[in-house]
Amino acid sequence: MLPFSRVAILGLGLIGSSVARAIRAAMPTVRLSGSDADPAVRARVIELDILDDVADGAGAAVVDADLVILCVPVGAMAAVAAEIAPELSPGTVISDVGSVKGQVLADLTAALPGMAIIPAHPVAGTENSGPDAGFATLFRNRWCIITPANDADPLAVERVKSFWTAIGSNVEVMDARHHDLVLAVTSHLPHLIAYTIVSTASDLEDVTRSEVIKYSAGGFRDFTRIAASDPTMWRDVFLSNKEAVLETLQRFSEDLSALQRAIRWNDGDALHTLFTRSRAVRRAIIDAGQDTAAADFGREHE
Amino acid sequence: MLPFSRVAILGLGLIGSSVARAIRAAMPTVRLSGSDADPAVRARVIELDILDDVADGAGAAVVDADLVILCVPVGAMAAVAAEIAPELSPGTVISDVGSVKGQVLADLTAALPGMAIIPAHPVAGTENSGPDAGFATLFRNRWCIITPANDADPLAVERVKSFWTAIGSNVEVMDARHHDLVLAVTSHLPHLIAYTIVSTASDLEDVTRSEVIKYSAGGFRDFTRIAASDPTMWRDVFLSNKEAVLETLQRFSEDLSALQRAIRWNDGDALHTLFTRSRAVRRAIIDAGQDTAAADFGREHE
Repeated sequence: MLPFSRVAILGLGLIGSSVARAIRAAMPTVRLSGSDADPAVRARVIELDILDDVADGAGAAVVDADLVILCVPVGAMAAVAAEIAPELSPGTVISDVGSVKGQVLADLTAALPGMAIIPAHPVAGTENSGPDAGFATLFRNRWCIITPANDADPLAVERVKSFWTAIGSNVEVMDARHHDLVLAVTSHLPHLIAYTIVSTASDLEDVTRSEVIKYSAGGFRDFTRIAASDPTMWRDVFLSNKEAVLETLQRFSEDLSALQRAIRWNDGDALHTLFTRSRAVRRAIIDAGQDTAAADFGREHE
Repeated sequence: MLPFSRVAILGLGLIGSSVARAIRAAMPTVRLSGSDADPAVRARVIELDILDDVADGAGAAVVDADLVILCVPVGAMAAVAAEIAPELSPGTVISDVGSVKGQVLADLTAALPGMAIIPAHPVAGTENSGPDAGFATLFRNRWCIITPANDADPLAVERVKSFWTAIGSNVEVMDARHHDLVLAVTSHLPHLIAYTIVSTASDLEDVTRSEVIKYSAGGFRDFTRIAASDPTMWRDVFLSNKEAVLETLQRFSEDLSALQRAIRWNDGDALHTLFTRSRAVRRAIIDAGQDTAAADFGREHE
């Protein structure tokens, strides 16, 4: 038994197009519709042939769907929800893939009163954007966090869980507020720092941009990958999870000051102790199947 | 014509053992000797059979060598130089692979008066350590920066350049002080930040360590790679390049504060502008052949 038989995907970028491909691969009998605000994206998705029906508008795409997944930037959720509200059938489950959950749960609940709203966040992605960047295996062995309201219909929660399990994810159910705190640390802060260091490196007077590029293999290049992620998506994430991001950032700044002080005062023991501890964290991530054990992320040498 | 015919490698970890393997691959007639302060490493290198002769001490390893490469942590350079001083033949070229060059040039010059000292820094590595982690292609298409003193013998500089070119590197000659400023940005600051964020994430009360591990694919896991690098090496780097690291760190902190303020005051335009700029830097690094164009560093997605 499939959890859903007619799925509508709104927003056909990296994540939306990957969801479509993953459904095609895992549940080929599901009827897939979708739309995107950008006509060029819609035209490309038709060429790619990853949906049964690409509608010109979000409203038309959701007619008759039993699952609607919003794959738009977090700041666009409320507007898209308002746009589809008149077209939804009773009993349709509404979900999303946003990286912030408290704001999205509030926005969808306000725009779609009485509907089954089961927000979700697949913790997966790449630095690339757009429908060509998607692929069917993006969610395999990655966690998908589902953050229903306390009074959500348990059956709808189960169906969304089954859906993500079917396309290869591990599933966890969590309070939206806790999700936003956890992801502030594991995702939002890393992106913020990556964007910052790229900016710092670009603005130096004594070191040229060409030198930064040439010698980036010393570590800098690692940061540029996540700093190449979609600017609109990330602007919305930081503005929608402001409280948790600022709190986490404050802690990071304090820790950075402590390290700065250890360097200034030649406290080699403090540095060594801290640096030693990091190896265990890396090892745990590899053991949990959340990163490759291959050296240098398995990058090609040659 | 080979630039050197008898090479001694002191320190047989990731970099030293990779240099040995690269020489074997590119210049198989070179006679290779070496040593390591750790008896277990020496024993393992004998098993790996990557040197012609593994000596019990640094002094014995350098006898008759025409090139000696110190592949030890930056803080150990002075002591190793003092140890080998009595055994060196006149005309032997002394080089190293340290990530800091001003301090190393000063230390080697003081310990080895009258010798040809040509410091070098191959901007290459992985997060792994020890002789098993090395491989022959580590330096291919990576930059090696050579930082001779102003009065260095030009012929010795040319020979060291030829050596690194022969094992696949691109070579640049640079003032040691400028090297330390450039690498503070492209390597030392990234490592410092990576170590800090791993520490911040490990110390939260409201988010468990298990959650940090599970949801690390949101970005955090990228930082844990370079934060798994050798603690002794990195302690020495920060203490030996203190001035440039602290200056760069101060600029980073200012940029981070500006971003923090933009979030607090909902300045979405400032965020979007900054985030958009980062993509060009990533693209330039890929175009320069210093990172893979493959999504997600080419990590396997099943």
